[in-house]
Amino acid sequence: MITETQFQKELEELKENLLRMATMVEESIQDSVNSLVKRDSDLAHQTFKREKEINNMEIIIDEMCLRLLALRQPVATDLRFITSAMKIVTDLERMGDQAVNIAERAISLNQEPQLKPYIDIPRMAEITQSMVKDVLDAFVNHDSRLARSVCERDDIVDGLNNQVIRELITYMIEDPKTITRAVHLMIVSRCLERIADHATNIAEDVIFMVDALIIKHRIDEKKEEKS
Amino acid sequence: MITETQFQKELEELKENLLRMATMVEESIQDSVNSLVKRDSDLAHQTFKREKEINNMEIIIDEMCLRLLALRQPVATDLRFITSAMKIVTDLERMGDQAVNIAERAISLNQEPQLKPYIDIPRMAEITQSMVKDVLDAFVNHDSRLARSVCERDDIVDGLNNQVIRELITYMIEDPKTITRAVHLMIVSRCLERIADHATNIAEDVIFMVDALIIKHRIDEKKEEKS
Repeated sequence: MITETQFQKELEELKENLLRMATMVEESIQDSVNSLVKRDSDLAHQTFKREKEINNMEIIIDEMCLRLLALRQPVATDLRFITSAMKIVTDLERMGDQAVNIAERAISLNQEPQLKPYIDIPRMAEITQSMVKDVLDAFVNHDSRLARSVCERDDIVDGLNNQVIRELITYMIEDPKTITRAVHLMIVSRCLERIADHATNIAEDVIFMVDALIIKHRIDEKKEEKS
Repeated sequence: MITETQFQKELEELKENLLRMATMVEESIQDSVNSLVKRDSDLAHQTFKREKEINNMEIIIDEMCLRLLALRQPVATDLRFITSAMKIVTDLERMGDQAVNIAERAISLNQEPQLKPYIDIPRMAEITQSMVKDVLDAFVNHDSRLARSVCERDDIVDGLNNQVIRELITYMIEDPKTITRAVHLMIVSRCLERIADHATNIAEDVIFMVDALIIKHRIDEKKEEKS
């Protein structure tokens, strides 16, 4: 039973690292959008710095998963959990890349007069951050209800993105001098929408994983009833 | 040795399925961009139809990989190959999603007069298709040189994307009536750039995988020399 306990300990460590990486991504989103809203390009550089840490974390978790697969040769639920973890770190790393894209646009935008007060973009950032946090909690706790709520929030982000793009088009039509800035802001909005998409992709995997688990449990229960 | 041969057969089958899925994605990119260039919305619907097939393929390959991991309990190179395959199908599926985004924009654009002759966008589509094909070939054949050439093409696609966006901005400045169509085209261009990014992500994994293999071989050789 010692090996079993050791394996459980390693799984716990894997979960902790995943949650830590998710927190880093949340902070990156926050800093990148704050660098825009507060017109503070130093925060953008925080995002660039954190990207390297996120990339390192991806490699650490990936190696951890490969080691668990090779040495512990898990099956069923644990196998699916570890392979899902490997997919999730890829998503988290790409969310970090999107935050870097936002930070780059923020630096450009901060050099020009502000086009408009930013209202929808910080709201989008807030929602996507909550999605990143909750989808990782849903994953480590096998909570498909929480994962479903993440999917629902994706619709809100999509709606806000469409609203932002429509609004920016009206600015561009009224005054062609705003076009370059408006395009930068459109890209920021699309980046946030992409982050929400990544979170939703993870959420769908969690739902699939947990529901397969539930279905499997039901089949096992029926088998037990019959035997 | 029978088990070994059976395992090799299953790995071959996995490779064939991956190549098949990549071909489906290439076709989706082609149809979606042709639906725009040839102003043929029927081709856009082909893309929607193929998306379902691509999604099914993702599930089939994922299950295949999980079965291989659980039953064959591979180590070292085979383990890394199978876990990489699971990440690659996720990328392929999302490339399919991007093709769907392009097809949706094509349908909108086909209902209005054509803004400009499409030159750079079909070129981008051609390059991204070649990237998808080559990166999968690089993966199944452990060919890091080919993978590197995929990374190089990403720079070309990025350059074309920037060129498209700059050109569309000039259209918008000259005539605000073009803005909505220009935004649609910007999104098409960004979708192609995203597909190229996915291919590049895979290429980087292939390089990492193959180089780790080479380094490992060298270490093994040195060990043999010493013994």
